[in-house]
Amino acid sequence: MTDKDFQPLDSGIVPRFAGMPTFMRLPVATPEEVDIALIGVPFDGGTTNRPGTRHGPREVRNQSSIVRRVHHATGVSPFDLARVGDCGDAPINPLNLDETLESIAGFYAGVRRAGAAPLTVGGDHLITLPILRGLVADGPVGLIHFDAHSDTYDSFFGNRYNHGTPFRRAVEEGLLDPKRMVQIGLRGAISDAANYDFAKAAGIRLIFIEEFVERGAKDVMEEARAIVGSQPTYLTFDIDVLDPCFAPGTGTPEIGGLTTREAQAMIRMARGLNLIGIDLVEVSPPFDPSGGTAITAATLMFELLCILAESVAAKRPPG
Amino acid sequence: MTDKDFQPLDSGIVPRFAGMPTFMRLPVATPEEVDIALIGVPFDGGTTNRPGTRHGPREVRNQSSIVRRVHHATGVSPFDLARVGDCGDAPINPLNLDETLESIAGFYAGVRRAGAAPLTVGGDHLITLPILRGLVADGPVGLIHFDAHSDTYDSFFGNRYNHGTPFRRAVEEGLLDPKRMVQIGLRGAISDAANYDFAKAAGIRLIFIEEFVERGAKDVMEEARAIVGSQPTYLTFDIDVLDPCFAPGTGTPEIGGLTTREAQAMIRMARGLNLIGIDLVEVSPPFDPSGGTAITAATLMFELLCILAESVAAKRPPG
Amino acid sequence: MTDKDFQPLDSGIVPRFAGMPTFMRLPVATPEEVDIALIGVPFDGGTTNRPGTRHGPREVRNQSSIVRRVHHATGVSPFDLARVGDCGDAPINPLNLDETLESIAGFYAGVRRAGAAPLTVGGDHLITLPILRGLVADGPVGLIHFDAHSDTYDSFFGNRYNHGTPFRRAVEEGLLDPKRMVQIGLRGAISDAANYDFAKAAGIRLIFIEEFVERGAKDVMEEARAIVGSQPTYLTFDIDVLDPCFAPGTGTPEIGGLTTREAQAMIRMARGLNLIGIDLVEVSPPFDPSGGTAITAATLMFELLCILAESVAAKRPPG
Amino acid sequence: MTDKDFQPLDSGIVPRFAGMPTFMRLPVATPEEVDIALIGVPFDGGTTNRPGTRHGPREVRNQSSIVRRVHHATGVSPFDLARVGDCGDAPINPLNLDETLESIAGFYAGVRRAGAAPLTVGGDHLITLPILRGLVADGPVGLIHFDAHSDTYDSFFGNRYNHGTPFRRAVEEGLLDPKRMVQIGLRGAISDAANYDFAKAAGIRLIFIEEFVERGAKDVMEEARAIVGSQPTYLTFDIDVLDPCFAPGTGTPEIGGLTTREAQAMIRMARGLNLIGIDLVEVSPPFDPSGGTAITAATLMFELLCILAESVAAKRPPG
Amino acid sequence: MTDKDFQPLDSGIVPRFAGMPTFMRLPVATPEEVDIALIGVPFDGGTTNRPGTRHGPREVRNQSSIVRRVHHATGVSPFDLARVGDCGDAPINPLNLDETLESIAGFYAGVRRAGAAPLTVGGDHLITLPILRGLVADGPVGLIHFDAHSDTYDSFFGNRYNHGTPFRRAVEEGLLDPKRMVQIGLRGAISDAANYDFAKAAGIRLIFIEEFVERGAKDVMEEARAIVGSQPTYLTFDIDVLDPCFAPGTGTPEIGGLTTREAQAMIRMARGLNLIGIDLVEVSPPFDPSGGTAITAATLMFELLCILAESVAAKRPPG
Amino acid sequence: MTDKDFQPLDSGIVPRFAGMPTFMRLPVATPEEVDIALIGVPFDGGTTNRPGTRHGPREVRNQSSIVRRVHHATGVSPFDLARVGDCGDAPINPLNLDETLESIAGFYAGVRRAGAAPLTVGGDHLITLPILRGLVADGPVGLIHFDAHSDTYDSFFGNRYNHGTPFRRAVEEGLLDPKRMVQIGLRGAISDAANYDFAKAAGIRLIFIEEFVERGAKDVMEEARAIVGSQPTYLTFDIDVLDPCFAPGTGTPEIGGLTTREAQAMIRMARGLNLIGIDLVEVSPPFDPSGGTAITAATLMFELLCILAESVAAKRPPG
Repeated sequence: MTDKDFQPLDSGIVPRFAGMPTFMRLPVATPEEVDIALIGVPFDGGTTNRPGTRHGPREVRNQSSIVRRVHHATGVSPFDLARVGDCGDAPINPLNLDETLESIAGFYAGVRRAGAAPLTVGGDHLITLPILRGLVADGPVGLIHFDAHSDTYDSFFGNRYNHGTPFRRAVEEGLLDPKRMVQIGLRGAISDAANYDFAKAAGIRLIFIEEFVERGAKDVMEEARAIVGSQPTYLTFDIDVLDPCFAPGTGTPEIGGLTTREAQAMIRMARGLNLIGIDLVEVSPPFDPSGGTAITAATLMFELLCILAESVAAKRPPG
Repeated sequence: MTDKDFQPLDSGIVPRFAGMPTFMRLPVATPEEVDIALIGVPFDGGTTNRPGTRHGPREVRNQSSIVRRVHHATGVSPFDLARVGDCGDAPINPLNLDETLESIAGFYAGVRRAGAAPLTVGGDHLITLPILRGLVADGPVGLIHFDAHSDTYDSFFGNRYNHGTPFRRAVEEGLLDPKRMVQIGLRGAISDAANYDFAKAAGIRLIFIEEFVERGAKDVMEEARAIVGSQPTYLTFDIDVLDPCFAPGTGTPEIGGLTTREAQAMIRMARGLNLIGIDLVEVSPPFDPSGGTAITAATLMFELLCILAESVAAKRPPG
Repeated sequence: MTDKDFQPLDSGIVPRFAGMPTFMRLPVATPEEVDIALIGVPFDGGTTNRPGTRHGPREVRNQSSIVRRVHHATGVSPFDLARVGDCGDAPINPLNLDETLESIAGFYAGVRRAGAAPLTVGGDHLITLPILRGLVADGPVGLIHFDAHSDTYDSFFGNRYNHGTPFRRAVEEGLLDPKRMVQIGLRGAISDAANYDFAKAAGIRLIFIEEFVERGAKDVMEEARAIVGSQPTYLTFDIDVLDPCFAPGTGTPEIGGLTTREAQAMIRMARGLNLIGIDLVEVSPPFDPSGGTAITAATLMFELLCILAESVAAKRPPG
Repeated sequence: MTDKDFQPLDSGIVPRFAGMPTFMRLPVATPEEVDIALIGVPFDGGTTNRPGTRHGPREVRNQSSIVRRVHHATGVSPFDLARVGDCGDAPINPLNLDETLESIAGFYAGVRRAGAAPLTVGGDHLITLPILRGLVADGPVGLIHFDAHSDTYDSFFGNRYNHGTPFRRAVEEGLLDPKRMVQIGLRGAISDAANYDFAKAAGIRLIFIEEFVERGAKDVMEEARAIVGSQPTYLTFDIDVLDPCFAPGTGTPEIGGLTTREAQAMIRMARGLNLIGIDLVEVSPPFDPSGGTAITAATLMFELLCILAESVAAKRPPG
Repeated sequence: MTDKDFQPLDSGIVPRFAGMPTFMRLPVATPEEVDIALIGVPFDGGTTNRPGTRHGPREVRNQSSIVRRVHHATGVSPFDLARVGDCGDAPINPLNLDETLESIAGFYAGVRRAGAAPLTVGGDHLITLPILRGLVADGPVGLIHFDAHSDTYDSFFGNRYNHGTPFRRAVEEGLLDPKRMVQIGLRGAISDAANYDFAKAAGIRLIFIEEFVERGAKDVMEEARAIVGSQPTYLTFDIDVLDPCFAPGTGTPEIGGLTTREAQAMIRMARGLNLIGIDLVEVSPPFDPSGGTAITAATLMFELLCILAESVAAKRPPG
Repeated sequence: MTDKDFQPLDSGIVPRFAGMPTFMRLPVATPEEVDIALIGVPFDGGTTNRPGTRHGPREVRNQSSIVRRVHHATGVSPFDLARVGDCGDAPINPLNLDETLESIAGFYAGVRRAGAAPLTVGGDHLITLPILRGLVADGPVGLIHFDAHSDTYDSFFGNRYNHGTPFRRAVEEGLLDPKRMVQIGLRGAISDAANYDFAKAAGIRLIFIEEFVERGAKDVMEEARAIVGSQPTYLTFDIDVLDPCFAPGTGTPEIGGLTTREAQAMIRMARGLNLIGIDLVEVSPPFDPSGGTAITAATLMFELLCILAESVAAKRPPG
């Protein structure tokens, strides 16, 4: 236990531009001290085109100074439901992909053992693979996956570990149950007509943007909830699921994407799921000179924290 | 009277990039010479986080060179309905908040005595308080308020006059009638669950973005019109009511906001109200390096001018 | 004939950031070698306000490295339907408008004689006039025209050839059949209430953004298809038809425009038309420091290529 | 005569960010009212590569709000030596180079007849030609020319009037006396070894940056003063004579240029010359997103004003 | 005492882009734990023109991740000479200048009592006044002052406390001994010929940039050392003493300033002085979109730390 | 042999903004066709901090459109001395450092066998190692090395191949003769006092910026020429040797660096050396939003080409 005050600094006393840019201006903490661990994974070694997401965690921390305490629409106050702290960055090696996959997995195994649920900011999407390796100890989990891309390719440049392949690997390794996976917001031209064959054969539910627009957020999320059910589920949010007008600072923008309104609505509809962790990835500050993408990411991180805090609180034994 | 030609320069003769950047390339004028006074209030001394709106009036003037003469959808030609001129900036003191509140109020009292209706560009939202002090002479008026934030806090940093508090002050001072106030587009996490208590208790109608999205612009504006009725009404437009993808250049962006289409539709639905003045605030050029926010502001300023010109013309005695 | 491989480079072998930025990483080719000629026209001499579209073709080439091979929603693989190559830039003279009108027209006459259908990137919108002069040999064609502006003014600064006048000139010259013309997305204040008189009198169908929003993309495009029918049709896409949040890098932005989703939906609904050529104009890199407008343009160029490839393939004699 | 106060606004009363951005926050005036006319020429129709200097006058006006009243090193107070006002922009036609050459020349003939000395901000360097046509009435004058380029080409794209040719034309037309011309700061690779042949044959003194660096500002300017002597002289300052680190916002940057210290030192050494006018050209805001080039230009404009005011005062009859 | 490791993180183990951006990646500490306290003062309420330095401390912290351990030229290793830590930000109130002057002074009095020497990052230059009020307990100290401006004005906008007046106030209050003050790098036009009268009359040594350029860094610094002598001295470094090409991100740039080479040389020549504290002020991130000014500031902060560490070590009793 | 015209396009006929951005607007060629091969190596997998140089070759190609034909100071016309062409990019794998080291080495071995001298644009500095592996066939060569950093570290993150180690590896592998190596422009704090021990022990001549400033470019380069002598020599130019005001777009900027004037002077003094190849590395476009670094790099590339062309021509047998 700890006597830290796990509340963001009061912006009526310490201005938002002052002080240390921890996530949401929360205390620095160890996973053992908290219920929810805010973690950065500053690694972009799996990026095949435009790099830069290694700078994501720091800039999201910086912009997350705008986060306040109570959700205006749901009334959720995550800092009252759970102890939340900034647990720093997972160890990575910018020159060694294989070593980094191991060190991230090891770090998240420690988070799991400490009993904290992680809310992570990347980094490119490859990081979800070692996060899952660390977190998933008792058989495959479900996945709600917001993304413009399926990331179920087999390889690029002869390499099976990059930001286009993590979810194929995770299925192959038994970390994810493909029948309990749903990918929402897919779009963009593909390199080959067979690109989605693996995902389809495995039974992953693919919801392209066209279907999403046709049906709307509510209908889609009801299906998504049904797919993952009440069993343990991970949620991964690739910032490029948003339209580039909301999130230009990312490596592989695809026009015609989600609005932030739609993303917010869907995250709020994920309340009550059995969440073991969440990540938000692919924020690339070098391509975001005005900082808007990081502001968007920080705000969505608060939305995600609200549902994770509710999930954590729901699992807590009474008393 | 004056023999000035109160029409924007002809862009087929003087290019838009040439000449002096008065608002809409209109003549410089005194309030006495015009029906509608375009005014800048370059003050951001009430800003609690990111400063810069002191540069707003100049940059909106600069980008307002794109403004043309006739509204494409309503057919309104404001420059034919009313004499409109650039009446310069209200006097302010960047080092003294109290003195500035007085000098702005004095300036607007002069505008009122001159019989001109002001269309103002800020500056941060605190400026609406002294504008109302100068303009409101005969009892409280109604308010249509577009904003992501209610701005009815009591204080920040122990200070009761800042850009989070003007509308509480204005109600307390009897400048606004809370029963005739409507706030549209509210959103964003709050510091405390009690943040909206004052506004609710006072009877202000709060329309959060979620309700707005549910009901749509038309329905919401019909209610707003009913709330303010036919009595004197002020309209204030905080640029942060727009989604940050349309207006990144502001100090407190909140994702999930209005589209410009929605804003335009609502402004057009405000035709026929009894308007005593309008302001557009919180444009912050240092956070708008590409100038897009100022372009948006300049275009909305024309939309606002059209409804103000109609209101002014409607009050004019026949003959 | 040629033995070139008219497929984009494989991004799993040659990274997208490597190699020469031809359009879509396709081979350089002559019009004679291809079915569809991708062409740049780097000319902005018809621009009355903010210049810079002369830099458009190069930057769209640069960003078009992100283009992949197969359309995710329609399944169209344009590079399998037609030989597509980068045919370079049309010759222009930045100091001489009249000479440039001639040299562009001559270049496109050559493209026509070679039997290739052009997909062009501008340049300002004046370039569509000489393109049509070169392409249209057998009587007026129809036009689907996406734009915020009608571009049917008579003159600016005493000059009848500028980016506000090409479609009046094209009608006058018998290149376009006004009864088979539709303009979609019009908006923005106008200089004079009579600005649309020519277009209306000629019988051009004007669809303002307000009507578009009311009816939706599907309904509007069904009408547009009916207007142009099955006869030869040209399609011109001014990037400023999009809302500036999607395409800030243009000279005359107008708020309240199309979303990219809407634009994509309408382009896909133009499948099956009898297209003789397409252009995408008014991308201005100096006003697009983050490159987002060029990314949007490159992606839409792929959408446009898909429908042009289908049109070309449909006209090809069997066997 | 006029009773205007030809002093910049007091920045201790009206903040620099407030009010109308006239040049140096001086009154708007006619040439007849002033001794020195500050004039913009927003024309870039002579530009062969990157356009944008049409936006120069407005942005230099904007940034010139920083100008103060007394030169810290020389003690000169130009506003006490001469009446100085903002005389607006010369008329130009962005679509017609020939017409613009005439309208600029006509405007400057009017300035000459009014007895005012012009201090002009461009625009591209071609504008110096019509300025001289308007100003030079009594035989050729001398020229001090700061520039990275000689601008004595014969033609580009078959056109003899562009920003690479004005000084050849001016010599040919008898506006400049080549024996009294000096060009300082020349550098950059050339298209052809013969590029400087005209200038050399005509007797223009060419001082390349290498010679400048070897000799230093003082020695070079002593020679320059000797070359132009005490006869009427024009001074033209192309911002690209500065190193791009000081002035990135220009169309044709050349590395290895002058420092601002060197430029300031040379301008101050031009005190006491018989100056008939000065211009500062090639500031291109679209390539200067941070505004630094315009700040530099505005500051140099004050340096230039100081020497022009002394020259004007020196010619004034006693009494 | 503390067992913290007061060394920057090892960049060969934790990448520079990872982890929390404390100053120089040092531990967070209280003044009591360290010999040298790195402190931010995020206040710009004394700014008369362009605001933004309130964001300075955070961005300098961010960019200071590049700082290494040993000075390449002097061999000084400050972290071996003294315990150095990040002591956070002084308390400020963005809405209340008077209260902030008090709270800063109180904070620095605490630093003094703790026995730590402060190295501060601003904030605007007004902050030096309350810092001195807190630090100076035993009679006036000497001052080495690098700046483009003397900051000895009497008032602006009727206010005696702003970033143009701190050194007049400090002299008046007996905090600084004007005979032991030297200002280096002064330049820029002045509002009135009398602007320097107070400083001159008080006996402050003013070294304008012209004298500096004439004499060189070595000669000037020898004089500066003689002026302050071996008595307690404060050093203040306004980033605008640098030429704007090195430090565009500041509110009042003046061309023709110091190079970073010259600044580094002078700081190194300040070795061995009896320094009680140092500040570096006027870094304004909103005007520094590329971050270069903050990188420059962070590097100079290391130079300043080296001389302060030597001064601190020299005063330490042996053993 | 080939009948291509190995001259840049004529900018008086094809504008600089038109056409394909090959290096210097030269023809695409194979190494066999040319004497000098302009090559890109878009790899930044050896970067320990800020990535992005993978985008360097493309952006330098883009900006190299400004290159002209004849050196203004030396009169050298490289395109008349040697056939120069754009030989594209070396093959790289962004996900595999080891494979990339091999593929680059293989590519350059091919260049060597073709008899062409390479002028390369990176990429991070690690690429020089495989370039040397490919080029150096007959024993160690000399090196003139412009850089802020020695790049003779042993390892980072446990990895011996990264952009801080290439020159230690090259010495160890016998590719470079340390007695014939000179590093010019070194500066910046170091991680450990022993950082330069390897370089010093090996006999590499280290010239820090302080010595450079003291002695001047001429004296330093005379020594450098003596060190490498007349034997085969490679020249490597890290753009970060320049002061960041000239080259902000790089990953590890160090203030107090070379001016472009100094760099140009030193390159010109390298005329007559026996050069086997040259590279220019560490240009990082994501950190260069205004493009100035790439313009600087393109201009220096022309300077470097001039001396390489002379070297190539000097080795050519007469006739």
